[in-house]
Amino acid sequence: MKKTLASDNYSGANPEIIEALGRVNVGHQGSYGADDATAGAIAVFKKLLKEDIDVYFTMNGTGANVTALSSVCPSYGAIICSSVAHINVDECGAPEKFGGFKLLTVEKENGKLTPDDITPFLVNLGEQHWSQPKVVSITQATEYGTVYTCEEIKAIADIAHKNNLLLHVDGARISNAAVSLGVSFKEMLVDTGVDFISFGGTKNGLMFGEAVIFLNTKISENYKFVRKQGMQLLSKMRYIAVQFETLFGSDLWKENALHANKMAKKLAEGLGKVPEVVITQEVQANGVFAILPKEVIPAMQEQSPFYVWNEQTNEVRLMCSFDTSEEEINAFIEKLEILTATTA
Amino acid sequence: MKKTLASDNYSGANPEIIEALGRVNVGHQGSYGADDATAGAIAVFKKLLKEDIDVYFTMNGTGANVTALSSVCPSYGAIICSSVAHINVDECGAPEKFGGFKLLTVEKENGKLTPDDITPFLVNLGEQHWSQPKVVSITQATEYGTVYTCEEIKAIADIAHKNNLLLHVDGARISNAAVSLGVSFKEMLVDTGVDFISFGGTKNGLMFGEAVIFLNTKISENYKFVRKQGMQLLSKMRYIAVQFETLFGSDLWKENALHANKMAKKLAEGLGKVPEVVITQEVQANGVFAILPKEVIPAMQEQSPFYVWNEQTNEVRLMCSFDTSEEEINAFIEKLEILTATTA
Amino acid sequence: MKKTLASDNYSGANPEIIEALGRVNVGHQGSYGADDATAGAIAVFKKLLKEDIDVYFTMNGTGANVTALSSVCPSYGAIICSSVAHINVDECGAPEKFGGFKLLTVEKENGKLTPDDITPFLVNLGEQHWSQPKVVSITQATEYGTVYTCEEIKAIADIAHKNNLLLHVDGARISNAAVSLGVSFKEMLVDTGVDFISFGGTKNGLMFGEAVIFLNTKISENYKFVRKQGMQLLSKMRYIAVQFETLFGSDLWKENALHANKMAKKLAEGLGKVPEVVITQEVQANGVFAILPKEVIPAMQEQSPFYVWNEQTNEVRLMCSFDTSEEEINAFIEKLEILTATTA
Amino acid sequence: MKKTLASDNYSGANPEIIEALGRVNVGHQGSYGADDATAGAIAVFKKLLKEDIDVYFTMNGTGANVTALSSVCPSYGAIICSSVAHINVDECGAPEKFGGFKLLTVEKENGKLTPDDITPFLVNLGEQHWSQPKVVSITQATEYGTVYTCEEIKAIADIAHKNNLLLHVDGARISNAAVSLGVSFKEMLVDTGVDFISFGGTKNGLMFGEAVIFLNTKISENYKFVRKQGMQLLSKMRYIAVQFETLFGSDLWKENALHANKMAKKLAEGLGKVPEVVITQEVQANGVFAILPKEVIPAMQEQSPFYVWNEQTNEVRLMCSFDTSEEEINAFIEKLEILTATTA
Repeated sequence: MKKTLASDNYSGANPEIIEALGRVNVGHQGSYGADDATAGAIAVFKKLLKEDIDVYFTMNGTGANVTALSSVCPSYGAIICSSVAHINVDECGAPEKFGGFKLLTVEKENGKLTPDDITPFLVNLGEQHWSQPKVVSITQATEYGTVYTCEEIKAIADIAHKNNLLLHVDGARISNAAVSLGVSFKEMLVDTGVDFISFGGTKNGLMFGEAVIFLNTKISENYKFVRKQGMQLLSKMRYIAVQFETLFGSDLWKENALHANKMAKKLAEGLGKVPEVVITQEVQANGVFAILPKEVIPAMQEQSPFYVWNEQTNEVRLMCSFDTSEEEINAFIEKLEILTATTA
Repeated sequence: MKKTLASDNYSGANPEIIEALGRVNVGHQGSYGADDATAGAIAVFKKLLKEDIDVYFTMNGTGANVTALSSVCPSYGAIICSSVAHINVDECGAPEKFGGFKLLTVEKENGKLTPDDITPFLVNLGEQHWSQPKVVSITQATEYGTVYTCEEIKAIADIAHKNNLLLHVDGARISNAAVSLGVSFKEMLVDTGVDFISFGGTKNGLMFGEAVIFLNTKISENYKFVRKQGMQLLSKMRYIAVQFETLFGSDLWKENALHANKMAKKLAEGLGKVPEVVITQEVQANGVFAILPKEVIPAMQEQSPFYVWNEQTNEVRLMCSFDTSEEEINAFIEKLEILTATTA
Repeated sequence: MKKTLASDNYSGANPEIIEALGRVNVGHQGSYGADDATAGAIAVFKKLLKEDIDVYFTMNGTGANVTALSSVCPSYGAIICSSVAHINVDECGAPEKFGGFKLLTVEKENGKLTPDDITPFLVNLGEQHWSQPKVVSITQATEYGTVYTCEEIKAIADIAHKNNLLLHVDGARISNAAVSLGVSFKEMLVDTGVDFISFGGTKNGLMFGEAVIFLNTKISENYKFVRKQGMQLLSKMRYIAVQFETLFGSDLWKENALHANKMAKKLAEGLGKVPEVVITQEVQANGVFAILPKEVIPAMQEQSPFYVWNEQTNEVRLMCSFDTSEEEINAFIEKLEILTATTA
Repeated sequence: MKKTLASDNYSGANPEIIEALGRVNVGHQGSYGADDATAGAIAVFKKLLKEDIDVYFTMNGTGANVTALSSVCPSYGAIICSSVAHINVDECGAPEKFGGFKLLTVEKENGKLTPDDITPFLVNLGEQHWSQPKVVSITQATEYGTVYTCEEIKAIADIAHKNNLLLHVDGARISNAAVSLGVSFKEMLVDTGVDFISFGGTKNGLMFGEAVIFLNTKISENYKFVRKQGMQLLSKMRYIAVQFETLFGSDLWKENALHANKMAKKLAEGLGKVPEVVITQEVQANGVFAILPKEVIPAMQEQSPFYVWNEQTNEVRLMCSFDTSEEEINAFIEKLEILTATTA
């Protein structure tokens, strides 16, 4: 299939990842994490974040989010999140099913929670009739391609901790956020007070796998059981671990994310010059949200497949990936210019 | 790590699998199964089984078992299985947690259920106080390395169907069973009346992934939602699918399984000549269960790591894999002969 | 404790209910519903609704709602409801925990859904990433004391059925709604197309217990198992059943509800004459929602205890019951007039 | 219906219970436990057990068992119990569904666990593949009508605590056990080290309701939320509480239980004289298990209805209640003597 702007999971993996898989495909290794690659990947994360962390690998992002949240939130608890959060919209009710808890959602135009969004949910702490908020979950970068600053994350962590809540980050596009802010993972996640993360790589060049990382190691005690009961424990773990070791043990994660973000910026610039187009979100990571003229959408989807985000408003989502090329972006803009000129 | 007899998931993957992963690592592909490799793998299974099947890929065996069973068994239902079934012993309660149902277990020396084991559970059908049996789940080959004959499977299918129950097969070692019986998958699964299967490959040369296959397509309607809610839907599906396409689209599955079974037979023969050793199960697939003299176990584990199955009786489990070599088996037997000669 | 306006569950039960309990307290009766009173109560409901119904008793309203919804909605399903629905706000996440499903909520000023609220949730039917809407649940009378007309219910039933959804009614105050509309239960529930109901009585003079009634008997097959697994099956069932038989086998339900509604109307009229008070919802059943001057609230709560509904706006909820007296209402209004005159 | 030997829940309630319900049926009372009767009932239990306890009322025994166990056992945990435990056999999978955990069962001829039954489950503590034992649950009196001595309970508590497990008692027939042993509740439950109890009364003269009592108050913190999410929180709580206050605030519980046990003893003595009858369990509480000649069973069930416990062996269960009369027992024995004389 030709390249698309449909999703950053339409891409394959970096060739380095395939090579790494081949490299560890030798001899016997202990299963379920008792292997060298797992040790290596954990060491990489300790270097990127801090020494005192607990790292566990899962098989996908939904699995990471749901098992991580379930391991710290009782079923009578609640998770505060944005209404567009992946956990609320795109996981077919897995959080409710497996965690048993309620998602308390806030509609935010840019997908970013603020401390003021959290306060109203805290009035009924202790009341037996109400699901008890236990965790705030933010997505970094958000589902709208926007990015929390470190200060914004810290402010949320502070209000969460003051009220005995934990802060979780859904980091499906955590690398795109880090390079967008120009900060290290440590600055973005450790120094701000995040408690635990679904640390993703699949949307940034990996084949599959996700890491659940507890920066707050006081809350990780039960996780291994929850992961297994959550069907997220891979037997031949080396094949997930070596991917993370490869991506994050070098600058590959950074190069991938910088490139994807750059392509999104370029795409947004091109779109911005087309008068009929409205960019609807700040382009801070690798996604562009824009309203296109309804009549050009089908032809543009033929040029480079993408999803219509909102059928009512003709807002579309254009996702760039580590393998999106400048030529594709140029061709996309060119085609749009031709079509809008014609239809105008 | 040197080769072991610990588990068939201590092995890596066939080199052909790595090559196949590299081969599909090109360009964009639709995610979540809308890719060419998924179509190809489904075609392979249709050829191996029959045209009218529904095939879905999951990420691991626990995920396949639990989501498959949950998609057809209500939470007030029950699954009849052997007490040593993987779903009962090794999944940390995932079936109970995700399915909400009860496992009704039968202790069987050889791990194989018979129709007579099922009858007693049928007396309370319709009684609201009791979990309602809905599925019989058998493991083929069993956790004890024994294999159901086609006739035995058919007999269970018949009693299940007569009572409106379904027959599920946990096929983590389904290839080892097929080559052990010398029958095709079709003969073993379709002709016998199996309704649905967790079709495994990880223990026979794959890196990861499992297939849930509905031979009875009347019961597959809801599965895709259950898979997603069960956190078992991979985004870059091509990387699971191509592995199955590669293994089962050629004779590789058969060669792998034949070799592993042959090694187990060879190992059992060798063990059988050591007077101090008691083989405790018929060796019909790739596992050998045997009682070793307690005092030699640590040294033998140093020779080739393996698990003690029963600490009370000194029964050990020795698993052969597609990559187990004759030299290793010979060396293992030799070492055992020396040690038992010494201790005798 | 003196009478309150806090909740219609602060009241006791009608004396007739206690008498009835004593009357059936004789000899042995089959447990779990195999008793005469259960047969009698079912007959009463058949007369009030229609012959072809299935009636089951549970222990409370939360139990009725959650088990009823769970018996027809798979865990990957979703329930569409108002954001103030009892199932969303006041059940501590029981629907999510036991049903595993998601609640899709709509914010409505008067707590009443319309067909247009339902349509947007239907766009993704069949998409595996999204919880699949299966049921619309409305509360009659609503949590805001408003009442759906029969036409409004029918319109919702029609759009639900057209899309293969079911219509559930949370009828905690179903009697208050019926007398408010001046229609029979049959007209309100059967003729409009409701599929199943949580038929309450505790807020209208019963001691405890709730009925789950399936008007659509095609969907009731599994309910008895779900009720038991949902911990809602009482052993000495006669003591729930006789209460329903007593309340609904005579006009007692109607007298109770008419009185409570009348008291609410009277209260609203009195409040309406106090210039500082704003009535915030139409008073159609037995509850009055009003904004009171903040400074008088504590003294008024001393007069007759009640709950502040919204601390920000000083909106309070005043619930009338079958045992609320005119004197209490008069005294409440008088006190309020004095206090507002003073503070003005 | 005439008196039966079917179940102690075929009886009604003591007249004193109905009177008590009428007595509290006055005026308004805070709902959900904020009422005088709840305070009174808690005071009664503190006197019977000890000051430092936490008492919560639920609606039935299944609800008490399941919510209590779920409040202290994570879903990846396991409950060790007898295979005939009510939680294993008679709750339609409610423990698995709501708790998500696994029941690890032991077949015991007399239904009584011993410390040696528990040890084998402790070998895999900490292993992520296995459900982690967290609680031992015993039934007192057991489902077989046998009774643990205080020493036996203490021995189980000791091994449980030594391994960081908790001890739960399903006390559906706790009063029958106490009078059987001739000890106080304090001696039987507090002094032995029990952590928490489902304290029943329905089988000893109550209409409905159950108490969950935490003797170990370190583990009760979350219970109120679990009770609500478990659909076990009654709004008009006074009507459960006053029943417990009445039964256990006087000697009524003792009189009821002594009578029922005495009737069982009398019945067993009578049966013991019939040569064709085999008493299969020690008669220590209010139930008698006996093998009757198959051909007399239908006629005897006509005399006094009862359940056949085991269709294979013709073992029947004969339950005596607080309202079983000597005449009934005599008539039953007489009839049996006549029938066996005839058929012999």
